[in-house]
Amino acid sequence: MNRIRQDALRIIDSSIDGVLPEAAVQTALKDRAITKAVTVIAIGKAAWRMAEASYSVLGEKIRRGLIVTKYGHSQGVLPNFEIIEAGHPIPDENSVLGAEKALEMVSAADGSEDLILFLVSGGGSALFELPQLGLKLSEIMEITDQLLSRGANIIEMNVVRKHLSRVKGGRFAEACGQTELFVIVLSDVIGDPLDVIASGPAFPDPSTSAEALGVLEKFGIAYSAKVKAAIEKETPKSLGFCESIITGSVTTLCDAAAAACEALGYAPIILSTEMTGEASELGRTLASFSREILLGKSSPHKLRPPCAIIAGGETIVHLKGKGKGGRNQETALAAAFGIEDLEHVVIFSVGSDGTDGPTDAAGGLVDGNTLSRIRSAGFDPKQLLAENDSYHALEASGDLVMTGPTGTNVNDLMVVLIGEVNK
Amino acid sequence: MNRIRQDALRIIDSSIDGVLPEAAVQTALKDRAITKAVTVIAIGKAAWRMAEASYSVLGEKIRRGLIVTKYGHSQGVLPNFEIIEAGHPIPDENSVLGAEKALEMVSAADGSEDLILFLVSGGGSALFELPQLGLKLSEIMEITDQLLSRGANIIEMNVVRKHLSRVKGGRFAEACGQTELFVIVLSDVIGDPLDVIASGPAFPDPSTSAEALGVLEKFGIAYSAKVKAAIEKETPKSLGFCESIITGSVTTLCDAAAAACEALGYAPIILSTEMTGEASELGRTLASFSREILLGKSSPHKLRPPCAIIAGGETIVHLKGKGKGGRNQETALAAAFGIEDLEHVVIFSVGSDGTDGPTDAAGGLVDGNTLSRIRSAGFDPKQLLAENDSYHALEASGDLVMTGPTGTNVNDLMVVLIGEVNK
Repeated sequence: MNRIRQDALRIIDSSIDGVLPEAAVQTALKDRAITKAVTVIAIGKAAWRMAEASYSVLGEKIRRGLIVTKYGHSQGVLPNFEIIEAGHPIPDENSVLGAEKALEMVSAADGSEDLILFLVSGGGSALFELPQLGLKLSEIMEITDQLLSRGANIIEMNVVRKHLSRVKGGRFAEACGQTELFVIVLSDVIGDPLDVIASGPAFPDPSTSAEALGVLEKFGIAYSAKVKAAIEKETPKSLGFCESIITGSVTTLCDAAAAACEALGYAPIILSTEMTGEASELGRTLASFSREILLGKSSPHKLRPPCAIIAGGETIVHLKGKGKGGRNQETALAAAFGIEDLEHVVIFSVGSDGTDGPTDAAGGLVDGNTLSRIRSAGFDPKQLLAENDSYHALEASGDLVMTGPTGTNVNDLMVVLIGEVNK
Repeated sequence: MNRIRQDALRIIDSSIDGVLPEAAVQTALKDRAITKAVTVIAIGKAAWRMAEASYSVLGEKIRRGLIVTKYGHSQGVLPNFEIIEAGHPIPDENSVLGAEKALEMVSAADGSEDLILFLVSGGGSALFELPQLGLKLSEIMEITDQLLSRGANIIEMNVVRKHLSRVKGGRFAEACGQTELFVIVLSDVIGDPLDVIASGPAFPDPSTSAEALGVLEKFGIAYSAKVKAAIEKETPKSLGFCESIITGSVTTLCDAAAAACEALGYAPIILSTEMTGEASELGRTLASFSREILLGKSSPHKLRPPCAIIAGGETIVHLKGKGKGGRNQETALAAAFGIEDLEHVVIFSVGSDGTDGPTDAAGGLVDGNTLSRIRSAGFDPKQLLAENDSYHALEASGDLVMTGPTGTNVNDLMVVLIGEVNK
């Protein structure tokens, strides 16, 4: 494999490493001098990994910890940690048990001597739940099932859910009382506000009891007096002693890519962290950037090799064919047409979760010979692109990027990498 | 009007000035110390303007000159110049007269003492023609009409035309013999090779007599012995004493934009001179670049205001509605959605010919208040974009760019302009 393709693979690895749960926690804790005794509550699909990372940084400062994660997601015993596996995406009694344990632990913490470290990742909404006022989990689920079947949107669902819960909508933080609370949120959805991720257990709730009742009435849901009483208990609108950090976003992904490019000698520029639009169009645009650098008239106002153009975001594919692929593979394959026969350039697009569309690839990494390799394998790359069959095209050329599931999901990374030309 | 919009309009003016015929000729002649006596032959729709520019640089060094241009395109007497107006797009007897005059003048030139300056612009193919071997213009036109009606493509047409002509396909340069020939070509079509612009009167012809006869036979065209004899005279495959410069390309347009941005304090970067694809997608992409700069986390790897992102090329609009607009207006309107409510940014897209689609506007220039201005005028910008009605949207917001026809056509210029934020 040539140098620039090797570099690209290293950049992909480093970028994804930079947004893994471990890196998120380590980065957030790095510059904090923590002297208090720490209680760790970790919830969500990445809870074990975040908890383990906090232990690697804080060690014996952690007096007690609780991990509430999805079945099969615990990776073993951690000193001083209790581990509860629970239901996802459907909450179950262990979700309730986890939330009860957590409330127990934080109420045992001492206001002035202790620090509560709350580690939040995706899936926390189902994995961490405790109904208000002795309601049963099944009652809440019945209401949300009805809302869903009658066409309520996710925002309306959440307004109701938060008001029926003892931990969502800021109530977990409220339960921490005067004990200092430090929250690290592993953001896995672009632009998601803190009150949405895991239903915002440690963030003031902007929605009101009146709105929640309004939703039930709008969709004609019958509800008991107990449900009404629960909803009428208002969620907290402000919280003290609480600091939150969001990490692991697509911005972190692009920053990590830039750092990796720079370390390998490619001057990086981050153009956007919110790319949208048609995947193949973006592929062509990225290719045109590289053509300009390699073939255009030189100018003091252009990027010069070796360099890297970095973008993050999430594109879409408007399906026209019945092929196998994903948005990242489609972007990469479309880009291949714009760099045909060019040397010194690779373009890649990868999903940070390691699975692009319904495939086992994270994305694609193409160069100037990608199309000829596809043709040598007996395929017509143009036809495969038209059929949205990017997987089979890039499989034929050996240009699929395989990382396996990464345990994080902060959208996609697209990079144009231009190598030194005079070598 | 605020500062950044004013700056944008100045950048548009300077950029288009930079690719006008006058600038093209002045730039090409700038660093050449010409001491010989100059014969100027200018052909094409911009011939008068290019000739006038050569006169402004060379003055009395021009001993004799000839302008062959389209009817109505001469702008008056020039010292020592003869002016012939001829037919376009259909050649006429004046096209023949012009070519005859030109051949007369260049054969009168003295090999060692003289320099022939040949100024070529679009339309030269029709405006400058002299049939081989006493053929009549009408005979050539009959053959090309038949070819066209039987489905020959433009490449096949040109192969035949070049072989029937005494000036096309390098033959004009051949007729200049040993006299030094300097050619300035005003390129008005992206990527057009020198042998195609104006049918390549001063460029070796890659096509052969055999190919030309093959085209006639492929389409079953009957031809006389005289036509056969003419075609069998081979076009020149190499030319000495001849140097060509192509100017006025989209690269020049982007360079001029970069210089104008820099002069106004915006650090420019040229990303591409060959943008293609759907106009509205490009608009959204340009907007996302500006959002990153203005709203994204700051980073040493990002562009910092004040700056300008420059791209050239030509997009397309896949029409879905029946509105009025053009690709540049569509790009601008789509971009407006991505910068809504943002300050310190304008995005514009303009056609260098001054007419975008079937409208009297050159393009559009949008800012953070464009959408609200459209709404205030009683329109729904989303609906207008969906109907490809960018003209009426931007007319309502006062965001049409009107330059009038510019007399050049080197594709489109798109710029994201980000102003100083702390002012």
